[in-house]
This record gives sequence, C-alpha cells and structure tokens, in this order.
Amino acid sequence: MLTDTKDVPNPFEQKDKQMELVKEKMANVKHKIAIISGKGGVGKSLVTVNLAAGLAANGRKGKVAILDADLTGPCVPKMIGLKGHKMELGPGGIIPAEGPEGIGVVSMDFLLPNDEAPVIWRGPLKMGAIRQFLGEVAWGELDYLLVDLPPGTGDESLSILQLLPEMDGVVIVTIPSEVSQAVVKKAVTFARQMKVPIFGIVENMSGMVCPHCGELIEVFSKGGGAKVSREMDVELLGSIPMDPQISIDSDNGVPFINANPDSPAANIFKIIIEKIEAKVEG
Amino acid sequence: MLTDTKDVPNPFEQKDKQMELVKEKMANVKHKIAIISGKGGVGKSLVTVNLAAGLAANGRKGKVAILDADLTGPCVPKMIGLKGHKMELGPGGIIPAEGPEGIGVVSMDFLLPNDEAPVIWRGPLKMGAIRQFLGEVAWGELDYLLVDLPPGTGDESLSILQLLPEMDGVVIVTIPSEVSQAVVKKAVTFARQMKVPIFGIVENMSGMVCPHCGELIEVFSKGGGAKVSREMDVELLGSIPMDPQISIDSDNGVPFINANPDSPAANIFKIIIEKIEAKVEG
Repeated sequence: MLTDTKDVPNPFEQKDKQMELVKEKMANVKHKIAIISGKGGVGKSLVTVNLAAGLAANGRKGKVAILDADLTGPCVPKMIGLKGHKMELGPGGIIPAEGPEGIGVVSMDFLLPNDEAPVIWRGPLKMGAIRQFLGEVAWGELDYLLVDLPPGTGDESLSILQLLPEMDGVVIVTIPSEVSQAVVKKAVTFARQMKVPIFGIVENMSGMVCPHCGELIEVFSKGGGAKVSREMDVELLGSIPMDPQISIDSDNGVPFINANPDSPAANIFKIIIEKIEAKVEG
Repeated sequence: MLTDTKDVPNPFEQKDKQMELVKEKMANVKHKIAIISGKGGVGKSLVTVNLAAGLAANGRKGKVAILDADLTGPCVPKMIGLKGHKMELGPGGIIPAEGPEGIGVVSMDFLLPNDEAPVIWRGPLKMGAIRQFLGEVAWGELDYLLVDLPPGTGDESLSILQLLPEMDGVVIVTIPSEVSQAVVKKAVTFARQMKVPIFGIVENMSGMVCPHCGELIEVFSKGGGAKVSREMDVELLGSIPMDPQISIDSDNGVPFINANPDSPAANIFKIIIEKIEAKVEG
C-alpha cells in the first residue's frame, strides 16, 4: 500500500531528468550526423560503419562513435566486430563498446540475450530507450557521433531527431531502383519537415563489376540516385558499386574501407567522407 | 460548447465497431498469409507481389488480394503497376485497386498526395489505420489475402498479427548474408511468440548468374537461408537467384513471374507457391 507518495518515481520528472542528461552528454559531442533511408536494406548500417571508420582514420582515433538506433534489427555490432559484447557500467555511465580505430558503439543488440530475441515494443517505450542511450552513456569527448536510424520515417526516427535538434545534418542512403526512389523522396521531405540540414544522398549497390569477366552489371537498374538528387534538389554525395567483398567483410565484422582500402567502392567512400568533413567543418 | 454528450463519438465504441467490421470482412477470406522479414530491403514486397501473381494465375483470378501494410514505405503499388491510383468508395466500403490477374490491392500509398509525402505517425494512429484497412475495405470473397508487413518486429507487425489471430501462416523473407541471419532469427521468434504458424523461409538475392559470362557471383555471401532454416527448425521454401530483370520489371510495375515465366527465378517462385498451396489447402 502506498502511504508516502514521495517514494513513488514521477514519470514526468524522470523524463525531464533524462532530457537534461541528454543535453549534458551531447554538449561534449562536436558533430552529430544521422544516417537515414526511406527503405530498409539499402545499406544504411554499412554506410554508417564505413563513414565512422573513415572519419576515425582521418586523425580522429577514439573521437568517433556510433549509436545504433535501429531497435528492432540492430546490425552495427555484427558489422564492426562487436557481436556478443555486453554493456558495462562505469563511473560516467554506460561504457560504449570499442571497435576498430577506437570507434565507440552503443546498440540495443548489446542488451538482448541472444540473436533470436526480438524487441517487440510500442512507440513510447522506444522513446525512453533512445533517451537513455543518449543521456546515460559515457560518450566522452567526441568529434563525431553517427546515429544509424531505423529505416523509414516512423516513431524512432522522429524521436531521435526531436531529441537532437542540433543535429549537423543527415545522410540519406538509397539504391538505384525506381521503387526505392519513391521512398527516398519521403525521407528527404521528412528531414526537411524536421528542419535538419540534408548533407546529401549516398547511392549504394550502384551496379557491380563481375569478378569473373569484368563487365558491368546494373543489378538494381541505374541512375536512381542522380534522378532523386535532381528532382529533390539534394546533392548526390557518391555512388558506391556493389562488391561481393562488402558482404564478406560485414559478415566478418571488419569495416570494408579498412579491409579493402584501394578498391573502387572504398575510394568512393573516401570522397563522400571528405565531402561530409567539408560540410561540417567548413 | 458540448451540451449533449451523445453526439460525441466515443473512441472505445469506435474501436469496438471497427473490430467487428474486421471480423465480418475477414470471414469472407479463406486464407490469410503474412509476409514478414527481420530486416528491410530483402525483397518482402517483391515476394508478396509474385506470390499473389502466381496464386492468382493458378485458377484464382479475382480471388487474391494484397494488403500493403508497410505504412511508412509502401512499395507494392509501384511493383504491380498501380502507382498513382486513388481509392474510391463503393457500396460495400473502400474499393481495392485492381492489378494483373484481378489482384486487389490496398495500400497507404493510395492515400498519400505524392511520393514525397512521408507518413510520420505514432503507434496508436497506425493501429487505427490498419483496423480501417482490414474492416472498411470491400475485400469481397477471397481465396487468399497476402499481408505485406513492414520490416522488423515493431508496432505495425504486432498490430496486424493481433488483429488477425486466425492467420494461416507467415512467410519469412531473408537474404544469404550472416548480417541478415541474426535479424531473421528475431522474426522467427516473433512469429512463434505470436503463435502464428511459420510456413518457411524464402531466401532472396541468392547469388547471381552474370548476364555477360554466365558465371555465378555470390553477391551477398551464401547459405544463410539454409543455416537459419537448420538452426531455427524452419523449412527453407526456396532460394531465389538475383536477376537484373527483377528490378526492371518491378520498376515497370509488372510481376516478374508474369514477365519472365521461364526464368530460373520464376521457376523457384512457382515451387514456393506450390509448397504454400499444399500447406494451406492440405
């Protein structure tokens, strides 16, 4: 029986306290970038991991982190070699896992008992989880925090962008097919409605060179990224070709641009990273 | 000023009435199948459209329909040649759009003013939209209703499965990479927790034959579908190879198995359809 209400946590006070913590922690992060897509499976996590690896390699060891905010299908840990990591609590809060080049990683995946456990929860619970991730993690002093948002323009994307109004910008990932274009346009409008600057579009899976005969194969049609870029007046940051090695490296938990630095796809990644650095740092 | 409360709609009564309508409309649908995936972009909508086309072609013209329940990134209309269609109201309710082989299609896409408009809404609103789609559409007498769920195990998937407890079964779509396997396991567990029978796994993008030299390219690693099938004790219904024609046909709004009936990928689709028919109809 409740006799003294002062012992009962007030949910509104809790939320306010969490918001203060988010503000405090985020004040030590110089630049925040969200990676979004209209459609799933276009390589959003792949782009996040390789942007982080490239930014860190450019003289920012230990100064780059990733928040894997895809609560229902978190893929970043597997791709960056941190699968199975469990989160630990330190003096300043939850300690991010450490990936290659000192990249800090926080993901819902670290909280799940196993791969088979789905996270089935409703909007308000997600909001709370995201606030906790942003406010109660000891992110430390960072140059870049990359936030890998879930696909689409749903609850989670909305929540993150509302929590981080001072986001530097978003990178929108798509593939060349027309089917994807319709959905990526929604992502552009979404970012504009949220008043977040759009850095540009990364077109992934942009054709493949056959490893046997060297001929180009347009696996998912072609030109979709350029078309959306024109129609929506958004810069096309680069078109990344398919490479079977990308899937192999991701499965092995190694950022592709570290494992294959001289490949055509890695070179495009590097150009995209330079463009983002120029936009952010002027 | 409200003086007479009987004029004010009671939201609880509205919901109950909607649920009754759902029950009534769904009583005329012999078999209901949900198509789910752990991860986005694995070809869930592609599989839905081609299963529908194949089921309809097997003597069920006008007896198959698709509910495109991906509210944030609806792709089915584009893939089935119904892009730009607007929904109309008939005597029995909202009239589904009619695709090839008389396939009825209902999609959030038909309600959006243009491709650029994102649907940014929270969980409870989505629930209402899905109830309306199921209860207020004049589905008619159907042999099969295929429900294309959004990727992941979030609000929308949960809502649909709760609304349709008498679902015959789910088909889980994945791609061969290890990164996808971790996520597809969550979908299997999700379906089991919801107590929906699992028909099996469809592995999409399962290697590609180079159109120039005829050699096999393992674009997204290999064997992921078979591995998940073994580890989770779920049947592998079939592995569909990549084919650049699949993207071209989807962009043109034609079901691939209608346009390329003799291709290797279409033949696998046909085998999968036969397996599903056997499971459903005994």
